[in-house]
Amino acid sequence: MSSDGTDVRVDYSRVFTQAIDRLHSEGRYRVFIDILRNKGAFPNARCFAGHNGPKPITVWCSNDYLAMGQHPKVIAAMEEALHDVGAGSGGTRNIGGNTHYHVDLEHELADLHGKEGALLFTSGYVSNEATLSTLAKILPGCVIFSDELNHASMIAGIRNAGCEKRIFRHNDLAHLEELLAAEDPTVPKLIAFESVYSMEADVAPIAAICDLADKYNALTYLDEVHAVGMYGARGGGISEAEGVADRLTIIEGTLGKAFGVMGGYIAADQTIIDVIRSYAPGFIFTTSLSPVLVAGVLASVRHLKASSVEREGQQASATLLKTMLSEAGLPVMLGSTHIVPILVGDPVKAKRISDILLAEYGVYVQPINYPTVPRGTERLRFTPGPSHTPEMMRELTDALVEIWSRLALRKAA
Amino acid sequence: MSSDGTDVRVDYSRVFTQAIDRLHSEGRYRVFIDILRNKGAFPNARCFAGHNGPKPITVWCSNDYLAMGQHPKVIAAMEEALHDVGAGSGGTRNIGGNTHYHVDLEHELADLHGKEGALLFTSGYVSNEATLSTLAKILPGCVIFSDELNHASMIAGIRNAGCEKRIFRHNDLAHLEELLAAEDPTVPKLIAFESVYSMEADVAPIAAICDLADKYNALTYLDEVHAVGMYGARGGGISEAEGVADRLTIIEGTLGKAFGVMGGYIAADQTIIDVIRSYAPGFIFTTSLSPVLVAGVLASVRHLKASSVEREGQQASATLLKTMLSEAGLPVMLGSTHIVPILVGDPVKAKRISDILLAEYGVYVQPINYPTVPRGTERLRFTPGPSHTPEMMRELTDALVEIWSRLALRKAA
Ligand SMILES: Cc1ncc(COP(=O)(O)O)c(C=O)c1O
Ligand SMILES: Cc1ncc(COP(=O)(O)O)c(C=O)c1O
Repeated sequence: MSSDGTDVRVDYSRVFTQAIDRLHSEGRYRVFIDILRNKGAFPNARCFAGHNGPKPITVWCSNDYLAMGQHPKVIAAMEEALHDVGAGSGGTRNIGGNTHYHVDLEHELADLHGKEGALLFTSGYVSNEATLSTLAKILPGCVIFSDELNHASMIAGIRNAGCEKRIFRHNDLAHLEELLAAEDPTVPKLIAFESVYSMEADVAPIAAICDLADKYNALTYLDEVHAVGMYGARGGGISEAEGVADRLTIIEGTLGKAFGVMGGYIAADQTIIDVIRSYAPGFIFTTSLSPVLVAGVLASVRHLKASSVEREGQQASATLLKTMLSEAGLPVMLGSTHIVPILVGDPVKAKRISDILLAEYGVYVQPINYPTVPRGTERLRFTPGPSHTPEMMRELTDALVEIWSRLALRKAA
Repeated sequence: MSSDGTDVRVDYSRVFTQAIDRLHSEGRYRVFIDILRNKGAFPNARCFAGHNGPKPITVWCSNDYLAMGQHPKVIAAMEEALHDVGAGSGGTRNIGGNTHYHVDLEHELADLHGKEGALLFTSGYVSNEATLSTLAKILPGCVIFSDELNHASMIAGIRNAGCEKRIFRHNDLAHLEELLAAEDPTVPKLIAFESVYSMEADVAPIAAICDLADKYNALTYLDEVHAVGMYGARGGGISEAEGVADRLTIIEGTLGKAFGVMGGYIAADQTIIDVIRSYAPGFIFTTSLSPVLVAGVLASVRHLKASSVEREGQQASATLLKTMLSEAGLPVMLGSTHIVPILVGDPVKAKRISDILLAEYGVYVQPINYPTVPRGTERLRFTPGPSHTPEMMRELTDALVEIWSRLALRKAA
């Protein structure tokens, strides 16, 4: 109570409840779908929530794009490590948690991108956050140039760096150059961007961005999270496919999507790796990746360096699904990549479609709402893989056509 | 080149090289020891670096305090999950990565701390960073009161929150109260602290801090990373052992130390869990924990809820080692916990002792240098477990005594 008798105490639970109410009122409160995949039968899975016992479903929104999370070599490697060394690493990389698996995987990843070194993190998110925030602190006065559609983890790293930033319009070279040219030439500069933008399904003009970096003496940081394992003769990403890996200062990737396991990394020259290894709190002060995971990733990366069957199967599936959806008049966003988004443009409708698909058709695809994509661009995002059959695609297309007309949704222009 | 012909371009590699040189010149450049643990024979392991083939060593610095990372139940659960659902989750919690294992483990952890809910993160680091930075953003004008020895991950969260902070002297209630009293009563407040400070081996006065929180209407955030699994009848941490869990707003823990696997979590009332789940970028925008890890943790948590043998064995080992080291006149820092640090006070000497132990005695203990501990307080930190035998402790003590006299180091006062 204050001296005049009014209660001045903060009502914490009211503040928290209001934060949740805002989400409900905007139609973007998230309910997690509770599933278990069936190993060996992906994309088949079981769904738990709201049913009497598990219900069989088809998963259409996994980022285990190549089903490597179910690959016999990956499973065997993990089982072996589990029995050889146990469950966890038991420490940070510096204090007891640096296993031989970690060292081997870093060599494998450096080789994948033709770089001198690589560094593992507990996730792709942490690799972006830790590397970007640390780099900018090491380079006094650094300005970061960031694509407006960069992933939340890069945005977190840039914000936590506390440095100046300039946001350039998505994949807009002229705008990027304008911003670079406006800056003092003596100031350190870093251009941060992605290769495959996974919500748009489009690709950055990497070589042209490297040309600008050369012209304005900027470092480059490329997030290849949705491209590693997926593009290039050995799965080195778009930068490998386009032969520009050596022009990039730092390439970042995840071990949790096409490689099918979990974790993240950067690849770069040895000095930069050493700087991040030595200065990034998000790398230093955390238990290292479980050796079981690292062993699985080693098998996955090695397999995808030698085999292109999975990549080709995935690309064929994506092409077929895009064709079917377009021919059915659905508003599919046609990019050059393996991801198939359909624009809905409203969070409540996107959720409604997804709910009907799950309840009536046994199809699991998550609605993608703000803050993952900008408001007004809410969408469904399908990730067909090598094991999604043409029959599954036909059923999916028919289901969507039915729902589109039931809800009187806008078709393709 | 600038107009007068001088080169104004930033020399990036010079900046990076200088950053590394600084570490060398301070004697705190880190070399990771490359090891593999022998499952079933912990603390025995193999060391790779600088030898002809792997060399057998005894690990004295693992945070797998109870050797749960090698427990048959944990291994069996992980193997089963690996074969049932595969390697990775394939998505974020919201998009395809919410497995039944995750849901079960969150219930198990909520129950462990007597809270309504719990939320999993990819690591303890991320749970601290994401929760603290998000909480402060949800509570406008929030001031965070932080113990000066809080872990780097809490410091990162507090810094990234961008809110006001007040640092109180380590475990100093009078100082904390002074800072709380100085603040406007209408301002939201959060006290962030740890239960076991793992580098000091001491424990916070939790109940007294909760009294202050009540008096000044502050929320409390307790990091129990080094205490979960270790203290309390069911492994609920110091807050369980002292019967104060219900007085804490948020309890945070890791799955990578006493539980032996990897990951992190918070436990709190349902509304707070929902707020963090809905607003924290570090929770939302990342591939969820591998179901294989989650299955292992489930087995570990359930086992340690029912069994105290591991806790008692660990405490007995710690007590015995502290006695042996003190009796030998070594400067052991005597706290009430399971951790046994020996003060060296110099980074070069700490590394030298550690190098000799590894090369000549097959003992692996990492020197702890800045920034993990303040400069001038560099130390060796031993974590005896239930499987470290009295013979191993005798050998260790004798080795240290020999090295202490060889290097003419300061003994206990
Ligand atoms: C572009 C991009 N970068 C980084 C990440 C984070 O990777 P991870 O899931 O390994 O944390 C993601 C997705 O999760 C992403 O889409
Ligand atoms: C006090 C404390 N909090 C949090 C962490 C981070 O936990 P994790 O290793 O699971 O990231 C650590 C150590 O790593 C720690 O010592």
